[in-house]
Amino acid sequence: MSQNRPTNDRDVISELTTGRLSVYLRCLTYLESNGQQTVSSAELAERFHLNSAQIRKDLACFGEFGTRGVGYNVSRLKEHLVRELGIDRGRNVIIVGAGNLGMALADYRGFNDNGFRIAALIDVDPGKIGRTSRSGIPVLSYADLKRVVREQNVEIGIIAVTANAAQEVYDSLVDAGLNAILNFAPIQLRTDNHVKLKSVDLRINLESLSFYLKGVEDGTA
Amino acid sequence: MSQNRPTNDRDVISELTTGRLSVYLRCLTYLESNGQQTVSSAELAERFHLNSAQIRKDLACFGEFGTRGVGYNVSRLKEHLVRELGIDRGRNVIIVGAGNLGMALADYRGFNDNGFRIAALIDVDPGKIGRTSRSGIPVLSYADLKRVVREQNVEIGIIAVTANAAQEVYDSLVDAGLNAILNFAPIQLRTDNHVKLKSVDLRINLESLSFYLKGVEDGTA
Repeated sequence: MSQNRPTNDRDVISELTTGRLSVYLRCLTYLESNGQQTVSSAELAERFHLNSAQIRKDLACFGEFGTRGVGYNVSRLKEHLVRELGIDRGRNVIIVGAGNLGMALADYRGFNDNGFRIAALIDVDPGKIGRTSRSGIPVLSYADLKRVVREQNVEIGIIAVTANAAQEVYDSLVDAGLNAILNFAPIQLRTDNHVKLKSVDLRINLESLSFYLKGVEDGTA
Repeated sequence: MSQNRPTNDRDVISELTTGRLSVYLRCLTYLESNGQQTVSSAELAERFHLNSAQIRKDLACFGEFGTRGVGYNVSRLKEHLVRELGIDRGRNVIIVGAGNLGMALADYRGFNDNGFRIAALIDVDPGKIGRTSRSGIPVLSYADLKRVVREQNVEIGIIAVTANAAQEVYDSLVDAGLNAILNFAPIQLRTDNHVKLKSVDLRINLESLSFYLKGVEDGTA
């Protein structure tokens, strides 16, 4: 069963909108790095293959950044999206599981910059504790979890352990005081209502490609 | 800039529908493993926190599996979704990059079962070539890429290398004859129109959690 399920319709809307705000942020960052100062919804739509009506609707509440016929001010709209996504101040993250996946995430571009900082990896393996990831994130023991969360004001926990261990890790992250958890283990977790859990099901991406290939085979794609 | 962008509206619809078909498949697999024989759209919606009108709409074309007042036959609907997603026959996958991410993906549950099989990992590092992942996937050299794709009828390629190397890897996967590629490198690739590229931007998940935390702080969540 998928964990990528929203808990109600409001969550669906908010998840979809958030995803799109992230996409707009990527586009604006790209345009800004190319020195572009203004952009219209039509140009955003065309250059990045998005839906221009959807863009106007999503950005309607940011009206002050748009001028009819001129478009949005790239840098100001970007800054606004950064604030809207709550990444204008740093958010500290802890990863539990220093196996291949945890190590990959610790060094993944975008997980440790522009608003996010990985405080530490946590593992049970004495052979891993005391070492660091390639980019220098320290691997600590479970005994350090609560202290690091408290001292470094960690707000987001990432579960990068096997399915067997995931529930116990979830429980200890909640116990350590975290309210937002990203789960990579392919298992349904018993969750607390006051904690936001987002689970990533990487297989869905493969199924989507398979669906495409089948369409080609059937002559419908 | 995000790579998760559809190329047109039809793609958006197809991507969203595919994602939901995958979610329904997870739910039905779970129900089947619990011995449940029939399920109504209302029950599916309630148990898995989905939208029942959307379920009925998505599954309308599978009408033969539903009986008014009784619901869908779980096993038959599941089998139909498996066929619809094109995973009723095995699809072989190759992963380029045997670093932490490639290794994690090679051993990721769901990447090497129920319709998908990882044929090999490919890497340039002589220290990795000839070894295997924990679950036994062999690491081969680039010189083996075309041969493995041809001999093992590989259909999907996964890019698990750094951003710097991603374009070259994309080009060699296309050159080897692949039409469906899953990219984990955080970079915009120059793509061929006849190739389906799906890029995974893991940072969007963190931004979504940050958006939630900001909502809590602002008192709007």
